[in-house]
Amino acid sequence: MKREYCGLFGIYGHPEAARMAYFGLYAIQHRGQESAGIVTWDGQKIREHKGMGLVAEVFNERHLARELKGDIALGHIRYSTTGASLIRNAQPFLVRFGDMHLAVGHNGNLVNTLKLRKELEAQGSIFQTTMDTEIFVHLIAKNLGKNSLEEAIIKACRRIKGAYSFIILANDKLIAVKDPNGFRPLSIGRLGDNYVLASESCAFDLIEAEYMRPVDCGEMVVIEGGRLTSHRICDKAPTSHCIFELIYFARPDSYVFGELVYEKRKLMGAALAREAGVDADYVMPFPDSGNYAALGYSQVSGLPLELTMVRNHYVGRTFIQPSQDMRDFGVRVKLNPVKSMVKGKSIIIVEDSIVRGTTIRTRVKKLRELGARHIHMRVSCPAIRFPCYYGIDFSSKGELIAANNTNEEIARFIGLDSLHYLSEEGLLSSVAVKDAYCLACFNGEYPIRPACGAGKMCLEDGVAVLPGLEKCC
Amino acid sequence: MKREYCGLFGIYGHPEAARMAYFGLYAIQHRGQESAGIVTWDGQKIREHKGMGLVAEVFNERHLARELKGDIALGHIRYSTTGASLIRNAQPFLVRFGDMHLAVGHNGNLVNTLKLRKELEAQGSIFQTTMDTEIFVHLIAKNLGKNSLEEAIIKACRRIKGAYSFIILANDKLIAVKDPNGFRPLSIGRLGDNYVLASESCAFDLIEAEYMRPVDCGEMVVIEGGRLTSHRICDKAPTSHCIFELIYFARPDSYVFGELVYEKRKLMGAALAREAGVDADYVMPFPDSGNYAALGYSQVSGLPLELTMVRNHYVGRTFIQPSQDMRDFGVRVKLNPVKSMVKGKSIIIVEDSIVRGTTIRTRVKKLRELGARHIHMRVSCPAIRFPCYYGIDFSSKGELIAANNTNEEIARFIGLDSLHYLSEEGLLSSVAVKDAYCLACFNGEYPIRPACGAGKMCLEDGVAVLPGLEKCC
Amino acid sequence: MKREYCGLFGIYGHPEAARMAYFGLYAIQHRGQESAGIVTWDGQKIREHKGMGLVAEVFNERHLARELKGDIALGHIRYSTTGASLIRNAQPFLVRFGDMHLAVGHNGNLVNTLKLRKELEAQGSIFQTTMDTEIFVHLIAKNLGKNSLEEAIIKACRRIKGAYSFIILANDKLIAVKDPNGFRPLSIGRLGDNYVLASESCAFDLIEAEYMRPVDCGEMVVIEGGRLTSHRICDKAPTSHCIFELIYFARPDSYVFGELVYEKRKLMGAALAREAGVDADYVMPFPDSGNYAALGYSQVSGLPLELTMVRNHYVGRTFIQPSQDMRDFGVRVKLNPVKSMVKGKSIIIVEDSIVRGTTIRTRVKKLRELGARHIHMRVSCPAIRFPCYYGIDFSSKGELIAANNTNEEIARFIGLDSLHYLSEEGLLSSVAVKDAYCLACFNGEYPIRPACGAGKMCLEDGVAVLPGLEKCC
Amino acid sequence: MKREYCGLFGIYGHPEAARMAYFGLYAIQHRGQESAGIVTWDGQKIREHKGMGLVAEVFNERHLARELKGDIALGHIRYSTTGASLIRNAQPFLVRFGDMHLAVGHNGNLVNTLKLRKELEAQGSIFQTTMDTEIFVHLIAKNLGKNSLEEAIIKACRRIKGAYSFIILANDKLIAVKDPNGFRPLSIGRLGDNYVLASESCAFDLIEAEYMRPVDCGEMVVIEGGRLTSHRICDKAPTSHCIFELIYFARPDSYVFGELVYEKRKLMGAALAREAGVDADYVMPFPDSGNYAALGYSQVSGLPLELTMVRNHYVGRTFIQPSQDMRDFGVRVKLNPVKSMVKGKSIIIVEDSIVRGTTIRTRVKKLRELGARHIHMRVSCPAIRFPCYYGIDFSSKGELIAANNTNEEIARFIGLDSLHYLSEEGLLSSVAVKDAYCLACFNGEYPIRPACGAGKMCLEDGVAVLPGLEKCC
Repeated sequence: MKREYCGLFGIYGHPEAARMAYFGLYAIQHRGQESAGIVTWDGQKIREHKGMGLVAEVFNERHLARELKGDIALGHIRYSTTGASLIRNAQPFLVRFGDMHLAVGHNGNLVNTLKLRKELEAQGSIFQTTMDTEIFVHLIAKNLGKNSLEEAIIKACRRIKGAYSFIILANDKLIAVKDPNGFRPLSIGRLGDNYVLASESCAFDLIEAEYMRPVDCGEMVVIEGGRLTSHRICDKAPTSHCIFELIYFARPDSYVFGELVYEKRKLMGAALAREAGVDADYVMPFPDSGNYAALGYSQVSGLPLELTMVRNHYVGRTFIQPSQDMRDFGVRVKLNPVKSMVKGKSIIIVEDSIVRGTTIRTRVKKLRELGARHIHMRVSCPAIRFPCYYGIDFSSKGELIAANNTNEEIARFIGLDSLHYLSEEGLLSSVAVKDAYCLACFNGEYPIRPACGAGKMCLEDGVAVLPGLEKCC
Repeated sequence: MKREYCGLFGIYGHPEAARMAYFGLYAIQHRGQESAGIVTWDGQKIREHKGMGLVAEVFNERHLARELKGDIALGHIRYSTTGASLIRNAQPFLVRFGDMHLAVGHNGNLVNTLKLRKELEAQGSIFQTTMDTEIFVHLIAKNLGKNSLEEAIIKACRRIKGAYSFIILANDKLIAVKDPNGFRPLSIGRLGDNYVLASESCAFDLIEAEYMRPVDCGEMVVIEGGRLTSHRICDKAPTSHCIFELIYFARPDSYVFGELVYEKRKLMGAALAREAGVDADYVMPFPDSGNYAALGYSQVSGLPLELTMVRNHYVGRTFIQPSQDMRDFGVRVKLNPVKSMVKGKSIIIVEDSIVRGTTIRTRVKKLRELGARHIHMRVSCPAIRFPCYYGIDFSSKGELIAANNTNEEIARFIGLDSLHYLSEEGLLSSVAVKDAYCLACFNGEYPIRPACGAGKMCLEDGVAVLPGLEKCC
Repeated sequence: MKREYCGLFGIYGHPEAARMAYFGLYAIQHRGQESAGIVTWDGQKIREHKGMGLVAEVFNERHLARELKGDIALGHIRYSTTGASLIRNAQPFLVRFGDMHLAVGHNGNLVNTLKLRKELEAQGSIFQTTMDTEIFVHLIAKNLGKNSLEEAIIKACRRIKGAYSFIILANDKLIAVKDPNGFRPLSIGRLGDNYVLASESCAFDLIEAEYMRPVDCGEMVVIEGGRLTSHRICDKAPTSHCIFELIYFARPDSYVFGELVYEKRKLMGAALAREAGVDADYVMPFPDSGNYAALGYSQVSGLPLELTMVRNHYVGRTFIQPSQDMRDFGVRVKLNPVKSMVKGKSIIIVEDSIVRGTTIRTRVKKLRELGARHIHMRVSCPAIRFPCYYGIDFSSKGELIAANNTNEEIARFIGLDSLHYLSEEGLLSSVAVKDAYCLACFNGEYPIRPACGAGKMCLEDGVAVLPGLEKCC
Repeated sequence: MKREYCGLFGIYGHPEAARMAYFGLYAIQHRGQESAGIVTWDGQKIREHKGMGLVAEVFNERHLARELKGDIALGHIRYSTTGASLIRNAQPFLVRFGDMHLAVGHNGNLVNTLKLRKELEAQGSIFQTTMDTEIFVHLIAKNLGKNSLEEAIIKACRRIKGAYSFIILANDKLIAVKDPNGFRPLSIGRLGDNYVLASESCAFDLIEAEYMRPVDCGEMVVIEGGRLTSHRICDKAPTSHCIFELIYFARPDSYVFGELVYEKRKLMGAALAREAGVDADYVMPFPDSGNYAALGYSQVSGLPLELTMVRNHYVGRTFIQPSQDMRDFGVRVKLNPVKSMVKGKSIIIVEDSIVRGTTIRTRVKKLRELGARHIHMRVSCPAIRFPCYYGIDFSSKGELIAANNTNEEIARFIGLDSLHYLSEEGLLSSVAVKDAYCLACFNGEYPIRPACGAGKMCLEDGVAVLPGLEKCC
């Protein structure tokens, strides 16, 4: 199973729909840098362009002005996970049956795909990709003969399990669906008379559209002829929003699940200061991920904020490897400490998460070399100890240190004087509705068990399996 | 329906199968310059790499040395027809059902695809391309549950009509099939202990393999475990080899349909000299297409050969447009006459075909300006008056001049003193088996009628329809 | 005359000198993104590679590992000013006379070049570039016949006027020179037994070299045979460091002119708070240029810091133009405000400078639309009213708003409730030696008058002349 | 000293001068594929664009339509010799002195450059390239103060020795100069009211200009204000045209030195047939270099011509290396024999030259394997035994086999039944003026000795020295 962070954008009825999709994807580029694609419908023909790389690399003026004609557009960006970075897996996924052209963009991860795939293959279906999205499309096709498109989509949704936010462009309709648990964000906005859809509201800001509301859990929204209608795909299930969107993944200026990310992160930092305050000369983030929690910590604790770690703004995706004796170069080139801010100082570092801990260890060691007196770390979420089946690929960051180590062991490994992870209570104190979030990566309580049973995750596409963190299913 | 010239290559049991496929495709690059692809099987995994452009552009050393592992390989190149040059349509076409990986390379064109496609869609099949190859694969999949792979392929072949030479890589088997009429070439060779397959024998020469024989009409060849077995997919049909492979399309140093192209072209030129000899100072080809027929004409007529039209060897696929007042530049940049060879001379131009006639007209006009006394043209095939449904896209060269004009009108249009097309009898005098060829483009006698009836050809993918030459079906 | 921001790096005696130069340039990439070049000397041959673009784009592993051999290296990066972005003007500038190979990297701008050039041309010198560096090299060549290289350089330096930090690689010597006023930074460091030179000390940090000291004003440093010797090129002149390096141009983690930039910027913000404090809900920077002054302002004023403007980290050098009705898109795509942090709030924006004011105006207008109650701006330097002749190209940012408008007019134009520029006294309170800086861009008191007299600047290479800000000379 | 084949084009007074230069260079692309450059003058400003690669790769529509403005243009293409393929060495070579912009394109090779360079360096001149063209420009500059441009050029010409055809663009003048011996071709044409200059007349054909006459030996032609004036740079010297232009280098449809290349090559083949006729089944060229001589041989001998060796038209500049056991692949991929034309046949191969002989040997061996009965080779020039100092780099083709081997040894090495080189008399029988050609590469009688004396050639830029063929000077 492929883990997928992704970003979605849809727009209906705009004369420059592809261009709007381009900008919408541009605003949520942080959700996926592997590939980008846009599909448009001009009333008669479907057009697509997809490519590997950033939105700005994949599209040029010719694509937008001349090729991607039409007033309905669907855009998708995909995250670079491990090896299988293939144009074949770029989305939107586009198929035709008869006169109908169906383009599907997916954010999330299904957990019963192996079973469904075997069932479909037994009926003669053929598969061209390893994406769970292709299974969903086959299920729609199987139901389409005797049902309307909307009914076929609902029937397909009832067969799949897991996390999914879909946007579907089907000739002159634009359809959005969110799974009953509501794992992944998807919101509705308006731009003049047109409806827009996006994973995060910052996409609306860029094109000056107005944020309206999130797509509801288990809701299917159909935009057609300028009107939006809402349907339920099933009964209500307990809500299980992915809290990692708030902690780390979404942009701070976005609304996701109806919450403003910037405020949530400051509240997490504030909760940290209350839970585990410690005396120090100042508070500092590891830029830019810890910036907002550090603000919250500083304001509640009264300790000054400093930006001691300076980023090189020109670090790109590639650079030449250093000599063998240049240890830790990859970290050093990104973050360089301001020396005089370190010597003899007691420092509280605020971070949003620790995955492998090796980067942090390298920088902490440097701070020690420069003469830091005390180094404390405060992390704005609980320790991540369990795998995610719903679309967050912790493995892409390497081995989860907290799965096999106590806090004391981690603090020793990194070289800290003290380490504190925010408690589940502290974390939930930052959100509006406390029981609406999935905390499985912290506590192992999964809202939906994978089809294959005991949380085992399957090996596919050469993705390395984490110790105790197997893939599924 | 897409018209497809294509080239195929397959090899079984070679430790550097992908590299051999690369060179095999390199040798038959003239059969398609739009895209190239190679699929390999290493006993456990399937690998593929495809791209737009020439073989030398699509593949690099890393692809061959590290990525395309395995000792079975299937390669494909595709011709650039009109607009729809999409990576999506590059071949080999690769799908999976269950544990089986199936890669299919196709040369030819099916004539009952619309009907089959509707039938399959009614059963819930979805299509990701507009290629007829995808229909063939769906038919295999439908038959695979209760049949062996070989039986499923034979059953699929019985449903499709038209021109097809397929090479299929299915896990550890390499399978070749040719349609009962044998429209398109495909030959078998040996390289040491390994079997090789290729559209033309010049691919064997380059890798120093030995040419054995053509795949027979209606034959399926299965290579597995180092052994080749032969099967029949149906009863014998009348043989209908595409004579255009001999006239124009194949390389002169190739065997196709068991005939040596170089000899055939010289014989066509010789037949021309006998049928329509005329007095002149010399014979000259339009390089390089008319070279071999001109040799034959010169040797039979006793008139000297000259190479009066000089090619610029650096004309690539792109150049900047000239000024508006530089008429005929595209032709002029490619072929420049040697002036002193023209003034006061009577010239016989030998060409292999006339499609639109505009290029020839431009050069003939230039020869007139330079003082040619008489200009005669001899064409080494009959006038092309009918569309091809089996894979030759005359439309890619523009409107067929002979479909709507008499020979006299054409001669006047081009500015010739005389024009003669080789007769059907003259043409057939050059081949070994006279009734084994399809002459439909000359006489309209189609070996297989398209499914939709009266030779109407369908509009799809924006391909312009020729007057009197509609597309099918 | 071309205005040039640039970055220099040199290293002597390191087995991977080119690789070290690559990383050194990588660290100071902010000093120039137009072109990059490295020259090496291996004891017998000179090697060079230069190209347009970022360091990471210009060099690949092959350049460093195989082509740029040698243990002495000189690297240069150049800023993109206006139109004349030519590979011809990329540095280091490399020439040969007899057996000597001379590579010169220059940071700064000479003010008597036209005069010198005419003089040289009268003697038969020819010029291949428009760079003042070429004039310097001609002057060395003229003096070299009867003098040592060191003497010839000193004699050349005595002819040129203006701002210059040079690094010169001359066969097995590495030489650094700084002009008597010391306008541009250049520092010396050590990496094990080797000497290194760089425009900013952050280049030393990246390769783990140790910062030693700045090159002194009017000093020539010669590194040869592993030893460094110091020479004076002339008598002492009043020191005139460019204070803009501290305000805006250098990296915050660098030492330049012996001062730590991070501390200086915080002190400027602190001085602002003392000079022109105002009541507000919070202080915010325009990221990232105002970050450090905003920290200083916040800490002295006691007002909280917020990061209300969120950057899109994926904005690259190119993106497709938006529709015509998408005003201010270029700003919007980079910075998006967090809405709930704005409504009803009184905000102090801290910036490091205002050039044209249009970008700021756009964002201030957005804050007004979102309901900000009061918006104050505090700028961490005096208003820029005069052109720079020594290498800072204000014109590349457009028209200087303060040259022709009062503070009140500027505040009205931007839409501010109040605007305050830091006073000269406030600015100088942040530096260690108050009379060591050039403040000409604020007060018009130029340490060196251009050769042509009254501060007129010449038109060349199509560089637009600012109203009241002509170029020289 | 760099050996340089090159191509030149100039045009005066045309509104699209750069576009005409582009097409002119396109027509003579065979004269140099390493780099291309065009310089234009619009009455006030000089513009240039140069790059590595083919003309079609270096220039795009924007360069021609918008950047290279002006009605005078000078274009240059340069041959890829050995290692030193640097953009730094691309031409036209452009310098400025004062208000004068001077662009120089050079075809040829000077033989007294080291001496001149030392002399210039002693006077303080600096050099940025290793091209002899730079020395010529320095000499012009030295003379320009007290002389007119025309006088300065003539004085410079009197200092340099060797082979040179220059085109010089100097503000609003276009000047052509040919050395007194007339080694390299350069012709004058007219396009409407405008004068054009080109290395070969095929460049005139492409733009539909009319060929007028060659620039005379020792003539300087000045085009200014629409008028052409002719000047002599010195007294007449014996004429020494490079006969290799006729044998091999120029396009067959070109006039060079007033001779039509196509006719000359046929006459050489005819002379071969008379000198050394032999019985055989047919005559064949190694395409395309031997085509025209083979025509002549066939027509005189009465033996039929065959095109047995078939070229792959898609062999580009790069392809992936074959396996180690695929010997002779580089040759095989380019030329494949038609098997049935070889078995049992006696064959005469006509070639224009033999350099190393290894390629020919490989193909002859293949013909033997395919059963050729006799293989004779006839070469349309004498054996090349001496180096060229005037611009033909035989070394780029490797070691000259005839320098150290007798004809018998060469025939044995290649595997021929007989080998005959055309005699000097036979060769000269093909040209109009017998004593107007340099035959030094055949007989060692050099029209101009290199400055350093005994025909020693200098090592520079890592060019390997041939045994007995040292470089000069």
